[in-house]
Order: sequence, then C-alpha cells, then structure tokens
Amino acid sequence: MKKAVVLLSGGMDSATVLYLAKSKGYKCFCLIFDYRQRHRREITSAEKLARQAGCHYHVVKINIPGDNSSLLNRKIKIRQAGKGIKNIPSTYVPARNIIFLSFALSYAETMHADTIFIGANVIDYSGYPDCRPEFFRAFAVAAAAGIKAGLAIKIKAPLLEMSKADIVRLGSKLGVPFGLTWSCYRGGRKPCGKCDSCYYRKKGFIEARIKDPQLN
Amino acid sequence: MKKAVVLLSGGMDSATVLYLAKSKGYKCFCLIFDYRQRHRREITSAEKLARQAGCHYHVVKINIPGDNSSLLNRKIKIRQAGKGIKNIPSTYVPARNIIFLSFALSYAETMHADTIFIGANVIDYSGYPDCRPEFFRAFAVAAAAGIKAGLAIKIKAPLLEMSKADIVRLGSKLGVPFGLTWSCYRGGRKPCGKCDSCYYRKKGFIEARIKDPQLN
Repeated sequence: MKKAVVLLSGGMDSATVLYLAKSKGYKCFCLIFDYRQRHRREITSAEKLARQAGCHYHVVKINIPGDNSSLLNRKIKIRQAGKGIKNIPSTYVPARNIIFLSFALSYAETMHADTIFIGANVIDYSGYPDCRPEFFRAFAVAAAAGIKAGLAIKIKAPLLEMSKADIVRLGSKLGVPFGLTWSCYRGGRKPCGKCDSCYYRKKGFIEARIKDPQLN
Repeated sequence: MKKAVVLLSGGMDSATVLYLAKSKGYKCFCLIFDYRQRHRREITSAEKLARQAGCHYHVVKINIPGDNSSLLNRKIKIRQAGKGIKNIPSTYVPARNIIFLSFALSYAETMHADTIFIGANVIDYSGYPDCRPEFFRAFAVAAAAGIKAGLAIKIKAPLLEMSKADIVRLGSKLGVPFGLTWSCYRGGRKPCGKCDSCYYRKKGFIEARIKDPQLN
C-alpha cells in the first residue's frame, strides 16, 4: 500500500486533502504542528480529524523564533477580512510552510512514504509567499537533492488552484467531517466570523450552496 | 550593520563559521537546536560559544518524528570510524539540514538578516545527502521563492569544500575557542575518540599540526 505524509492543520483545506489522499488509496501519516499558534484549538481539531479518518498522526512541537506574527504574538491585532489584499497580513509566519514541509520530508523518508500532501491554496489565499506554486516547485527540487539518492518524494498540493467553494464541494463529496474542522485565526470558543480565515470559509460554503456544519 | 543567522551546533565547523561571519562584519544571531540528540552536550557547548562570541542566540526545541537514527535512538549503535564510507551512516537524521535551514530562513526574515551561515562540509563529511553542494543551491532557490518578495536571503556554507585540517587552520587564525566545542556523537563525559565525528576532528588537528585543546 502506498504511503503519504499529510500536513494536517485542522482546517477545512488540509482535512479535504487528507480525505482526498485516502480516496486515492494512500495510507496516511498525518503531521500536526503545535507551534504555539494563537488558534491552538486547531490542534485538537486536527487530532480528531486524524482519528476519525483512522490515520496515524504525530504532533510536532516547535518554537518558531520571532514574534512579529499575530498568530504567535497576541499583542498584534488580526485584521478584519474583506479590506482587499495589499500587504502580507499580520497572520503571516515567515517560512512556516517551509518548516512544515521539511519535517514532512524527514517523516516521509523515515516512514518510506513517497508523497507529501499539503492543503495550500493560492486562489483564496491571503498573500502568503510560501503558498505560491513556484515555491512548491522549487522546494520539490531542493527536497530531491537533500534526501537519500534514489528516493523520489513527491510534494502534492492538489487544492492549490481551487476556489474555496470548489474545496467545499470536493470535501462534501469525499465525506469530510467539516464540523470537526477549525478555521478561525482567533481561536475563541466560537469562530469570530471576521478574520480572513472565517471570511473565506463562509464565502466558500455560501458559493457552494452547502451549509457549514460548524455554524449549526 | 549587516546581520546574519548562524546555525550553531556546538561543533568545530559551526564555531569556525560563526567566527568567520563575525570577522566579515556581520552581527550574528545564532540558532541552536535541541532535537533530543544523543550528544545533548553539544547544546551547552553551542550556548557557551555564542556567549563567548558575544552573540544573540536562540535554542529551538523540536521533536523530529521517527527514531531510526542513532542520534535520536540510543538503541541503534554508532559505528566506529575508518571503515570506509559505503552507506549513509546510522547517525543520519533525514532532512535535518533542511529542517535547520527552514528555521534559519524564518528567523532571518524576522530579524531582517540577509545571510544564513551553515557549517556544512562535504570533503570530510559522512555521506549525508543534505550536505551536498547541489542541495544548498536548490534550497536557496526554494528559499527565495518562499519568503517575502524582494528579500534576498543568501545561504552561505563557506566550509563546504574545505578539509578538516583547513577548518582547524582557519579557526585557529580567527581565534575560535576550540576547547569549548563538542564533536563526539556519543556525548559522554569525554570524547569517545572512535566515532566518525571524533575521527575526522582528530585527523584535522593532526594534519594541521595544531593541538586540540579538548584533549589537554
């Protein structure tokens, strides 16, 4: 059985990617990151999702140096969505996907997995440079050069150019338990409904004409 | 003053790189990794080296998933040196330099540093794939694509093609306190003298005709 490492944040995109990988016949090993994020409850969501999908998972604890991201530093405000993307938002954590992918690469080599799945998305994304298609292409080349010769670990970002509505539709078809996912950057008891992440989620469900079970 | 992030393991190579970066006029920010390595005392060495050099440092704690490296799993033997390099040795931790570099990249972007220094070495190296020049070149391309547009963070591995003897000579010239460094993979009270890391260190000092202060 072919194996894959799936980067699982606990949000709707990575949950959809997990179910997509399963539907393609991969035995999935999920990597969940505890990086002291403000919305720590996404970790619990990710663990629930992995268990629900019947997959192995591993929580990697890391402390990313620096505190000029609003996801790492509660003193920095999270902007309201819908004001247009001009600058990289305060939620940006420098090189976060690069860090996540390098752990995934290590894990994949260890577990003899030939594919890494990541739920990055470029259409509705919030201006993060490490979500750009050219980054993933370049990282795959570096990955191939930096691991054991002969291993060919593929990096797949199947949602990269999909809209959030498309992701909702795909996830629904695959039976993703969206009610277990968590998107809100603020990480309160309920989704704030105002941050970028809540905004794009809501827009996606509305456009797909599917009810978000989280809002029941 | 130009700034650099220096990956500091506590060994003689990264210590030499730190002093080299300082001699080039960089204000250095050291990243030290606690990855549950068997030779944990290299962390203490790294901290001492950073303090001695008057540099900021940050210890990043990470748990690398998987335990099939002898540096992470004490049940796996560390081979004796000098038996010829046929396979990648048991001390290999998959994608370790990739993980270290991605944290360095994040830290560099946060601290507005324009250069990352890494003490990787390919001549006397032990067959680690993420020490190959082609890996560093490819990683630099991925790094440029994955961080904020316009930032050009250079990745420098100035010891890459030097022999250990050359490194000893360079370090001595730069005033590296080699007595504070730690190389032995076994991480006992004294260097074992038998692992790859001890072997190459010893060879380097002998060839450079310089006395290793650690053996006093």
